[in-house]
Amino acid sequence: MDKLRSYDLASLAELLQVKLDGDATIKISGLATLANANEGDLSFYHNPLYFNDLLKSRASAVIISPQQADNFPGNKLIAEQPYICYARASHLFAVNTQENYGLAESAHIHPQARLGEKINIGNNTVVEAGASIADGVSIGANCVIGRNASIGKDSRLDHNVCIAHDVVVGQRAYIYSGVVIGSDGFGFAKEGEKYHKIAQLGSVLIGDDVEVGANTCIDRGALDDTRIGDGVKIDNQVQIAHNVEIGDNTVICGCSAVAGSARIGKNCVIAGGVGIINHVEITDNVTVTAMSLVNQSITRPGSYSSGTGLSNTLEWKKNIVRFRQLDSMAKSIKKYLTTK
Amino acid sequence: MDKLRSYDLASLAELLQVKLDGDATIKISGLATLANANEGDLSFYHNPLYFNDLLKSRASAVIISPQQADNFPGNKLIAEQPYICYARASHLFAVNTQENYGLAESAHIHPQARLGEKINIGNNTVVEAGASIADGVSIGANCVIGRNASIGKDSRLDHNVCIAHDVVVGQRAYIYSGVVIGSDGFGFAKEGEKYHKIAQLGSVLIGDDVEVGANTCIDRGALDDTRIGDGVKIDNQVQIAHNVEIGDNTVICGCSAVAGSARIGKNCVIAGGVGIINHVEITDNVTVTAMSLVNQSITRPGSYSSGTGLSNTLEWKKNIVRFRQLDSMAKSIKKYLTTK
Amino acid sequence: MDKLRSYDLASLAELLQVKLDGDATIKISGLATLANANEGDLSFYHNPLYFNDLLKSRASAVIISPQQADNFPGNKLIAEQPYICYARASHLFAVNTQENYGLAESAHIHPQARLGEKINIGNNTVVEAGASIADGVSIGANCVIGRNASIGKDSRLDHNVCIAHDVVVGQRAYIYSGVVIGSDGFGFAKEGEKYHKIAQLGSVLIGDDVEVGANTCIDRGALDDTRIGDGVKIDNQVQIAHNVEIGDNTVICGCSAVAGSARIGKNCVIAGGVGIINHVEITDNVTVTAMSLVNQSITRPGSYSSGTGLSNTLEWKKNIVRFRQLDSMAKSIKKYLTTK
Repeated sequence: MDKLRSYDLASLAELLQVKLDGDATIKISGLATLANANEGDLSFYHNPLYFNDLLKSRASAVIISPQQADNFPGNKLIAEQPYICYARASHLFAVNTQENYGLAESAHIHPQARLGEKINIGNNTVVEAGASIADGVSIGANCVIGRNASIGKDSRLDHNVCIAHDVVVGQRAYIYSGVVIGSDGFGFAKEGEKYHKIAQLGSVLIGDDVEVGANTCIDRGALDDTRIGDGVKIDNQVQIAHNVEIGDNTVICGCSAVAGSARIGKNCVIAGGVGIINHVEITDNVTVTAMSLVNQSITRPGSYSSGTGLSNTLEWKKNIVRFRQLDSMAKSIKKYLTTK
Repeated sequence: MDKLRSYDLASLAELLQVKLDGDATIKISGLATLANANEGDLSFYHNPLYFNDLLKSRASAVIISPQQADNFPGNKLIAEQPYICYARASHLFAVNTQENYGLAESAHIHPQARLGEKINIGNNTVVEAGASIADGVSIGANCVIGRNASIGKDSRLDHNVCIAHDVVVGQRAYIYSGVVIGSDGFGFAKEGEKYHKIAQLGSVLIGDDVEVGANTCIDRGALDDTRIGDGVKIDNQVQIAHNVEIGDNTVICGCSAVAGSARIGKNCVIAGGVGIINHVEITDNVTVTAMSLVNQSITRPGSYSSGTGLSNTLEWKKNIVRFRQLDSMAKSIKKYLTTK
Repeated sequence: MDKLRSYDLASLAELLQVKLDGDATIKISGLATLANANEGDLSFYHNPLYFNDLLKSRASAVIISPQQADNFPGNKLIAEQPYICYARASHLFAVNTQENYGLAESAHIHPQARLGEKINIGNNTVVEAGASIADGVSIGANCVIGRNASIGKDSRLDHNVCIAHDVVVGQRAYIYSGVVIGSDGFGFAKEGEKYHKIAQLGSVLIGDDVEVGANTCIDRGALDDTRIGDGVKIDNQVQIAHNVEIGDNTVICGCSAVAGSARIGKNCVIAGGVGIINHVEITDNVTVTAMSLVNQSITRPGSYSSGTGLSNTLEWKKNIVRFRQLDSMAKSIKKYLTTK
């Protein structure tokens, strides 16, 4: 690793705007969990599960709530919300992971593309005609920004990212390597046994502060646009089909798939490996647990699940035989109880 | 968006070879759903669910069946199959989304590659020795066409596509960004605790009129080839393992996975997130619903499913406990009923 | 295909260090299954399922165990473990699929990158400052090797691979096209409805002899590192989240997802499409069958499963209604049996 920046505790308290309790001159050069922290590390305590780690931690300083502060005798940064304070602190110790390319000589930037100021475009990246790259955007190597696509201010794209024509990405987006946005939706008209492709004339509109994880795909709409709200966080390997709409601040974890024209509300949490079938609507504030299949609309906030839970394979084999008999079993019981 | 082409209704009727009923001179500059259409838009009516939208539509013209034509007072294109007519019309309003690169200067085309006529090869794309690119093929940026691979006439590849050595792609294929075809199958021989890699000596053979969605992978065969039939449509993020065979006109939706040596028949529909285990055989005309696990061969046409359906998480937790007791529960019932 | 190498049977016996029984001068120019072998092909017999194929095989020679040797009258290579012998033989017939680029002129190799000897770097590949590429490494086209990342001896990367800064890949790795290693883990701190990104300060450490399939993602850790043991084999489209640890010689099949901080032991087999939720621990020697959800830790070796098995969709619909009534049904039965 590059040598991370180092701070004295007083500077950290000021940068994070929290109260300091302890030795203001101590040097902090890293962040670590309570259990793994060594001298020079800052740590944080936010979860009672780690109370024993707190007592034994070798961290030079700990971010801690005022209520818990007495439990740590060492140097402290006192924060009402230690986990959020840790999130802020993390950026103080992050290396700038994107190379400073400027406009790489090997990049292919069309003369009719519009570029803002303080832009970074990596090697071999292609920016097509009419594309618009706002101020402060940083794009890695081997990307393609399609015709008339637009990337909002201070957004960052890693490497090998494909943004198709006319796609709109908002401000402060973070798009990881291998992402494909604006590929054609999967739309066909069947005639006999053959499928005729339907040209996908919509686009993809992505709000501000959106994160799109590595190798995720978001398809363009058939006629209307696929829409991703502000503050949406999408993990790796997620598939968002054409004409999906996702409300603000919804989180979608890895390997989930959202089929065509499904609508997900605001502030939802879709765990990993979830499947959401086409045309269903999910209201705001819904949680769907891992690997569930949402095969109907969800009209009330709450948590939803499917699956059988895990079993030993031999027992499971017996139980799935019974699962297939479940309806007839239920009928027998009902009949028996009724005839008594 | 680039300004889309505009047509008068008479021209559209001629291009689509359908009967016109109404004002032949009206200008049509876009396609839209009945609900969202505005002046200048063409729309289509094919599903009774949208009957109210039809009555209220502001579309300048509607594609409609002869049986339904009386229900729309405005300008009409009369088509026996309005949805197929819409599919055809969609292409009249599509922009050409692939840049016209010609043979990009930055492309690396091996002197021993064979190129047909009217070929488009994008920036930084690598075409290795012995590769064959037929007439009318259009390839985007940052692709790799491996040694002796062959791409059939009028096929299109988007960006960052990898076609490995000796893979054969048929005519009129559409391969989206991030696709990897011809990676090694996942084959090992176990000796003690260690795995020895088995070289994958087969290839991938893809028929005509195949679509392969973004970030999908199709592995090469171990000894024989992996085979994808004519007219097969594969969505995004699908995984096709080594030696799989897929019959003509089968559709595989997003995030499905087909394990090694599985065989899928013709005219099947594999919905999203489906898993098909290795060596199973699925006959023709089978539908598998979303997120089902096909853990046995399917010998009769029809629709197949697995999973539990969605529940509230608290209720679900109670029910999965009972699922694990299902076999013993069934036995108790049987015993009780028998001993009565 | 390029013409494969051809061997006489005596040379093959020597190269594979096995006993020859038959005509030592016969020419072998390919490998094939017993059923598909023709003159000039070597085949292998290891599974009684293929006994009839053995009897009818047209192979010019067969790899066979001493116990079974009498069942094949033709030329034989006698190996204690025919399948492992086949695995070794497969490499004798493999073409070298990576182009010999040397250091491609169009590659962007930072002057501060450290390169070993006998290195192959493909077109347009970017190697950033401080990156270290050991002896014998072969990298395809359009890859990015991030700052201070390190690739161990004799490793091979295909095309469009992204290795982020500071990631460590061991020796003899095989990393397929489209892989992304070292993207940020999916970590946020929630404040009100908004999510604050947590900088991911850990890295990814990958042992020796690891295979990573096409379009797979492995995220970097939040504070500590994500760790992949020696001999681990990961298939295509797998998602490994931040701070996951995977023990030596564990196999993870296609489309599986391992959520944050999960730990998988040694010598496990995780089948395709499996989901493993965050923070669970799986002990050594565990098998998880296809598409199972591991939603709890597994402390005992063995095989584990979830799901319902496959049914006809109409029957399935009835049974999933009953699944939702399972707990109340079980209670009714219990009550009835108790009150008798």
